[in-house]
Amino acid sequence: MRTLIKGGTVLSASGASPADVLVEDEKIAAVAAPGVFSAAGMAADEVLDAAGKYVLPGGIDAHTHMEMPFGGTFSADTFATGTAAAAWGGTTTIIDFAVQPKGGSLLSTLDAWHGKADGNCAVDYGFHMIVSDVNDTTLKEMETCLDRGVSSFKMFMAYPGVFYSTDGEILRAMRKANDTGATIMMHAENGIAIDELVAQALASGRTEPVQHGLTRPSALEGEATSRAITLARVTGAPLYIVHLSAAEALAAVAQARDEGQNVFAETCPQYLYLSIEDLARPGFEGAKYVASPPLREKKHQADLWRGLRTNDLSVVSTDHCPFCFKEQKELGAGDFSKIPNGMPGVEHRMDLLHQGVVAGKLSLARWVEACSTTPARMFGLYPRKGVIAPGSDADIVIYDPSARQTLSAETHHMAVDYSAYEGFEITGKVETVLSRGKVVVSPSGFSGGSGGRFLSRDLCQYLG
Amino acid sequence: MRTLIKGGTVLSASGASPADVLVEDEKIAAVAAPGVFSAAGMAADEVLDAAGKYVLPGGIDAHTHMEMPFGGTFSADTFATGTAAAAWGGTTTIIDFAVQPKGGSLLSTLDAWHGKADGNCAVDYGFHMIVSDVNDTTLKEMETCLDRGVSSFKMFMAYPGVFYSTDGEILRAMRKANDTGATIMMHAENGIAIDELVAQALASGRTEPVQHGLTRPSALEGEATSRAITLARVTGAPLYIVHLSAAEALAAVAQARDEGQNVFAETCPQYLYLSIEDLARPGFEGAKYVASPPLREKKHQADLWRGLRTNDLSVVSTDHCPFCFKEQKELGAGDFSKIPNGMPGVEHRMDLLHQGVVAGKLSLARWVEACSTTPARMFGLYPRKGVIAPGSDADIVIYDPSARQTLSAETHHMAVDYSAYEGFEITGKVETVLSRGKVVVSPSGFSGGSGGRFLSRDLCQYLG
Amino acid sequence: MRTLIKGGTVLSASGASPADVLVEDEKIAAVAAPGVFSAAGMAADEVLDAAGKYVLPGGIDAHTHMEMPFGGTFSADTFATGTAAAAWGGTTTIIDFAVQPKGGSLLSTLDAWHGKADGNCAVDYGFHMIVSDVNDTTLKEMETCLDRGVSSFKMFMAYPGVFYSTDGEILRAMRKANDTGATIMMHAENGIAIDELVAQALASGRTEPVQHGLTRPSALEGEATSRAITLARVTGAPLYIVHLSAAEALAAVAQARDEGQNVFAETCPQYLYLSIEDLARPGFEGAKYVASPPLREKKHQADLWRGLRTNDLSVVSTDHCPFCFKEQKELGAGDFSKIPNGMPGVEHRMDLLHQGVVAGKLSLARWVEACSTTPARMFGLYPRKGVIAPGSDADIVIYDPSARQTLSAETHHMAVDYSAYEGFEITGKVETVLSRGKVVVSPSGFSGGSGGRFLSRDLCQYLG
Amino acid sequence: MRTLIKGGTVLSASGASPADVLVEDEKIAAVAAPGVFSAAGMAADEVLDAAGKYVLPGGIDAHTHMEMPFGGTFSADTFATGTAAAAWGGTTTIIDFAVQPKGGSLLSTLDAWHGKADGNCAVDYGFHMIVSDVNDTTLKEMETCLDRGVSSFKMFMAYPGVFYSTDGEILRAMRKANDTGATIMMHAENGIAIDELVAQALASGRTEPVQHGLTRPSALEGEATSRAITLARVTGAPLYIVHLSAAEALAAVAQARDEGQNVFAETCPQYLYLSIEDLARPGFEGAKYVASPPLREKKHQADLWRGLRTNDLSVVSTDHCPFCFKEQKELGAGDFSKIPNGMPGVEHRMDLLHQGVVAGKLSLARWVEACSTTPARMFGLYPRKGVIAPGSDADIVIYDPSARQTLSAETHHMAVDYSAYEGFEITGKVETVLSRGKVVVSPSGFSGGSGGRFLSRDLCQYLG
Repeated sequence: MRTLIKGGTVLSASGASPADVLVEDEKIAAVAAPGVFSAAGMAADEVLDAAGKYVLPGGIDAHTHMEMPFGGTFSADTFATGTAAAAWGGTTTIIDFAVQPKGGSLLSTLDAWHGKADGNCAVDYGFHMIVSDVNDTTLKEMETCLDRGVSSFKMFMAYPGVFYSTDGEILRAMRKANDTGATIMMHAENGIAIDELVAQALASGRTEPVQHGLTRPSALEGEATSRAITLARVTGAPLYIVHLSAAEALAAVAQARDEGQNVFAETCPQYLYLSIEDLARPGFEGAKYVASPPLREKKHQADLWRGLRTNDLSVVSTDHCPFCFKEQKELGAGDFSKIPNGMPGVEHRMDLLHQGVVAGKLSLARWVEACSTTPARMFGLYPRKGVIAPGSDADIVIYDPSARQTLSAETHHMAVDYSAYEGFEITGKVETVLSRGKVVVSPSGFSGGSGGRFLSRDLCQYLG
Repeated sequence: MRTLIKGGTVLSASGASPADVLVEDEKIAAVAAPGVFSAAGMAADEVLDAAGKYVLPGGIDAHTHMEMPFGGTFSADTFATGTAAAAWGGTTTIIDFAVQPKGGSLLSTLDAWHGKADGNCAVDYGFHMIVSDVNDTTLKEMETCLDRGVSSFKMFMAYPGVFYSTDGEILRAMRKANDTGATIMMHAENGIAIDELVAQALASGRTEPVQHGLTRPSALEGEATSRAITLARVTGAPLYIVHLSAAEALAAVAQARDEGQNVFAETCPQYLYLSIEDLARPGFEGAKYVASPPLREKKHQADLWRGLRTNDLSVVSTDHCPFCFKEQKELGAGDFSKIPNGMPGVEHRMDLLHQGVVAGKLSLARWVEACSTTPARMFGLYPRKGVIAPGSDADIVIYDPSARQTLSAETHHMAVDYSAYEGFEITGKVETVLSRGKVVVSPSGFSGGSGGRFLSRDLCQYLG
Repeated sequence: MRTLIKGGTVLSASGASPADVLVEDEKIAAVAAPGVFSAAGMAADEVLDAAGKYVLPGGIDAHTHMEMPFGGTFSADTFATGTAAAAWGGTTTIIDFAVQPKGGSLLSTLDAWHGKADGNCAVDYGFHMIVSDVNDTTLKEMETCLDRGVSSFKMFMAYPGVFYSTDGEILRAMRKANDTGATIMMHAENGIAIDELVAQALASGRTEPVQHGLTRPSALEGEATSRAITLARVTGAPLYIVHLSAAEALAAVAQARDEGQNVFAETCPQYLYLSIEDLARPGFEGAKYVASPPLREKKHQADLWRGLRTNDLSVVSTDHCPFCFKEQKELGAGDFSKIPNGMPGVEHRMDLLHQGVVAGKLSLARWVEACSTTPARMFGLYPRKGVIAPGSDADIVIYDPSARQTLSAETHHMAVDYSAYEGFEITGKVETVLSRGKVVVSPSGFSGGSGGRFLSRDLCQYLG
Repeated sequence: MRTLIKGGTVLSASGASPADVLVEDEKIAAVAAPGVFSAAGMAADEVLDAAGKYVLPGGIDAHTHMEMPFGGTFSADTFATGTAAAAWGGTTTIIDFAVQPKGGSLLSTLDAWHGKADGNCAVDYGFHMIVSDVNDTTLKEMETCLDRGVSSFKMFMAYPGVFYSTDGEILRAMRKANDTGATIMMHAENGIAIDELVAQALASGRTEPVQHGLTRPSALEGEATSRAITLARVTGAPLYIVHLSAAEALAAVAQARDEGQNVFAETCPQYLYLSIEDLARPGFEGAKYVASPPLREKKHQADLWRGLRTNDLSVVSTDHCPFCFKEQKELGAGDFSKIPNGMPGVEHRMDLLHQGVVAGKLSLARWVEACSTTPARMFGLYPRKGVIAPGSDADIVIYDPSARQTLSAETHHMAVDYSAYEGFEITGKVETVLSRGKVVVSPSGFSGGSGGRFLSRDLCQYLG
């Protein structure tokens, strides 16, 4: 089976060139200057006209939580619904988190997550492993995880009693990471201090959603980020800060990077576009915007955009973790600390970041780099993913840069009853999506299924 | 004319993939997975076997001085000899400096440099313009230069009485740069203060070559770099610091970049590998190593390598400006301040930086990025140059990563009687070089000529 | 002659103690716990009741310009009127600037300034020397100045063609300062760049007083401050930044001080209380507020107060340099660049800074330290001046912390026709002032005369 | 009872003046220029000749641990022996730490410490309170402590399971500190991470004393210091970092101070003079040098001296906590983690810091400030202590700056069987010490007793 994507502008992390792309079965076979293929008499079974469109490597969302257990409920998207929504939005790879329960085994956790995902995904997927319990067994299991294609391990400085690891446990895991080359991913908020602030708020009767933000000050994200960086320096482990939201944290990352330490960070669209003002919406509506770290004061947004340009923020992921407003978010009515933490977003990342291109805040090359090429290199998937090059998987998005759309819960494909971006007007729209050579989204709709495969990943490709 | 480069590993700024490259006449026609072309029955006039070799975009040296007048003499390489040497070393584009004389016109200067270069170059070339004299006329001429494909203007905070511009003149030129999008390139050393230190040294009888280094302390490069950054911030102009050599200057650049300012910098191989100890060689031998900024204490080298990894140093250029030891360098016997400033290097940049790859200091992707892709984007040449992609100029290097060679004046091709790297043992070697599709260097020798063409350049492609 | 100051609270740079102060002739003879003197039967010729009052060392204003030639006119206060106004305001020592004309001699300049001041001053005075012309002769004369009690030399990075020194000249003078222990004082604004901005403003018809501020951006004060610090580091000279007004400059000073360099700075009341909004007053009134560096945006004020607390700003001086609005400031009607630079203030420094104490921004100890003790130590006058201690000169202020007054040109004693602080309401007021034991200001008025003596100063007492 | 100290040079935090000091009973009655008292016919019961000597306010050691329980033993000095040793060394005030046991009450702890100290001390003393257990009761008790003259509360980020407080507990206590004006003192080392490093060392058989240093890297002191500063910023509490030993921690303190936060720090003589090389002495001798934070690499010393000059380190205390080598330090033979933590030093602080004066690293004024005046102001004792001024306690040291002595366990007066400074040659020596007017040390020996009184302290006097 041969598909020819013809007449488009092919994007890479370095720039753009007019070119045709030939797909054979699951792979990109060749990229050629316009007309070369036809001059060579190379026929295709299917031709996709990309004239006036961008042809870019499929998006890679390195931070999603499908069917994740949290506070007695589960995030609302299954691997099936979530990956289909991802495909709709031009994302052809997700890396989801397998969640070790306290006392559980990493390997059985991994098995459990394979059980949820295998055979159900519309696009390819990988796993990071959340390590909730550090002990001799789990440290040993980390090595096996690496053998099984899970090369990154997430730990939490937040959520005491749930996912929280002490600095000593972090140090142990980082030492193992240093020995094996694995990456430690960190949720960097000082959860111990935050829990005290939460207790004080509740004790004084402050229970509404905005308190979620007020009890998690940005200084405590900055602090935890600095601490994680120090622990990484002491051990030599590569460190990746997830969902960075605060200027203080960005400053810590920038300094460590200037000094040449292997420290990386991602931010998420919600921190670029939304703010604590959304958390403070009247009534209980703010609950829709409860995620951790919390949405920040607006002034942080300019810093994050700048960090994205300067590559101090290397990646944009979504931290997609949807909970329905009805019944799920409502668990926290009357007590903000019981609101399930998380927001939907896997479908909108490519579009939302394209607005940065439209607004002149990001170059086209940087859009592709932050949303696809860098996550591929960061998490050991390049050049299989993240680039339009011969031999790479034919995960390709044809994007119409001038189409217009309005985001809404009524039209999105995520299994959640609200949109955090309700009413946002977007310039640009995914037209066609190929996942390993198969068209899964086209102007006629979703044609994908459950053909997504597990991606066994190598180590981070940025270690210097 | 069709050439097929077969079986190699194609490198880009993001990574490496096995692929075949098809060249048609002057352009890259297609890149394909191994075997695709033959399966399609596409024949080539010539096939170059790249098995076991890297196939990379030709190097771009954004800082050379061929036939440059300096202190009553001229740099020893003509455009003919210098570009041939460049080709030998895998560099297929140079950007040389046209030098406005005090009181002269930019446009007639540009004409003069076209006169020197046109029809004489072995590879393609562009020009930056050195602005020695800022006045209403030259400011106006800057606009015409842009129209003529010269989009970057170099100024000097060093060399009072020769190229030196005052901060007021710099401010005026930067304002014009801000208006037009041009880039200001800066030689950032405090020449006024340095001249005083030189006078003190000479007055106290310190005349030997190492005094060149001692009278140009790194603090005065750091100072001038900070000052240039401030002036750029006041005016909004993009700024590119040439030949950064000092940790203090790197720190200033890194901070400005963290803050999102359009500030960029290059370093040169001599600052990565050589030091003030070379300037202090016995007798007059140190004169071989006289260039400005001077070679620094060794401790700066680790900072520069780190800066290269972190992209605070975006580009590696050579500042190739060779003067023969005999008769030229000897002009400064007995008075270090009369030694012509400059060192040869255009031929060795790709090899020397490849040693960084061998030593694990740089990734392959970063090697290609710093030596080719980034200079192309920085100086408005991408995707014509700097990438192996359909439609790009077929400036291609086939590089044997495991060959061994020893650098020496006896074997190099630059028109200068010494090598700054005499006896350096190198792993890796250029095997074949194509310039716009034509083989100019091959295992059988140099087959190039004077087919290099002037490159009309666009604006910097990194402005955020 | 014995005077007993009884019942007051004696202030020092460390704190406050209730104590009586015994003055014998010109000196402080003893300080005793309340009642000790009378118990010892020690009689005094005069007793001053200080109950409920502060008794503090007389203020030292280290930066005044009496009768200074500037732009074809002279600052409006003579040494007689200016020092009387100082006394009224609780300042018992001024250090004024002798101004070397281009081409003139330091020593004849010093003679000329002695000619103006000797026998005319109401309080003691010293001189700094402004070095406008650096050459072998003046460098030699610096040594003689030190012998004659002038241990600090001011240079200008501003005012090209008038006081401006090149970086090379600064380097030469700093080298001499390093050799002799002298302090280099610096007016740190990039005058070369500023002149270009001024020319652009005038060329485009922007001529009103606020342009004075807009053409001297704070970044150019920060730049020059950093440059001066670098030159001082290269030479080893102690550096004192005069009239620091900008957050950027403060940051540079703070960093150098953290690193242990002998760098000091003063600010002035006008930068703590006034802003560019005053420069932008309607019509020509802004001319009253023209001084260099210019009044800044209000946001700088909080930084300066913080710097004063943290001792990154060690001293508060006035840069008193009054020009009458009529006839003098009016020289710049229609061309802001012709407005004489300077503002009156010598009379109000102690009161204005006391407002910081009232507002809780400064401690009492810090008030005394910044206004008296530190300038004494900084400029080689301690313990003769700057402290209430046995053996010190009896320069003493009795200050009523709860009195109220309103500042106004109608009531001040400076020879200038406007007040920069017109209408400011002040808590606290000088009640009585002794200059070397003689009451010069008391509730009955000014009783001083011309008894002020020249102070031969030692080196800075802070060099580490 | 009247004592006249005659002919000496009286030192203060600002400088030095020749003056006589008259003591009446427990207080300083007056300070006078030489001869004034005799001219006034004021007779004294006793005259101490201080010609050629310094007369300075008695030293204040704000960090001692007498009779402290630690690891099953007690520090070797009782309040009686320890304060006598302090007096021998020119220290006339100590502030010791009352140690709340886990589960205990602050007030009964305070009672217990009064029980140990009252009636036994040779010089005056105050208490800080170590808070090991933060809960509603102890938070309430903090208020009562303040009423009882204990205005500073120490917490530990080190020693999990012993004194360690979580970040949440620290936050709670800091909030109380912010409400009351109390100072939080912090032992800033990341004890959780360190315990993991200790476990790893022991597990791999590394048991010798130097491992104490190697398992407590300076980065983890820097981290904890930054974290404490952040928690203080979140709450508004004043923060005082005890025994700062690492360049990283100093940098964090300096930055916070530049930003105007109420953050202060002390260092100790052992960090200025000793290093990890002492910990690495052959055999078990390194155990003598086991204290926490550990002695650092020598390169930190220059940073600490610089910090002391710049006032980023405001105070020098000793952390005097002696354990005999025999039987006490030996508890850790074969397991460094069991070596009691602490070193003797209360006797040598003034002498050791005077070496800084001799070496030109500190001014005389800074010596007095860091060792006496600042601790008095920092801990609410000024002007009762810390200055030679009328009304202040007559805690006075007559110091011979040119005497010579050699430190040794054979001659020191601390109840410990070794000296950390054995064989150090010292220029300068305490000659005579008065504690509240009574001579307790003189050339004829120790004449003190147990007359030291408890000092009820006010709040920190530096809060801005």
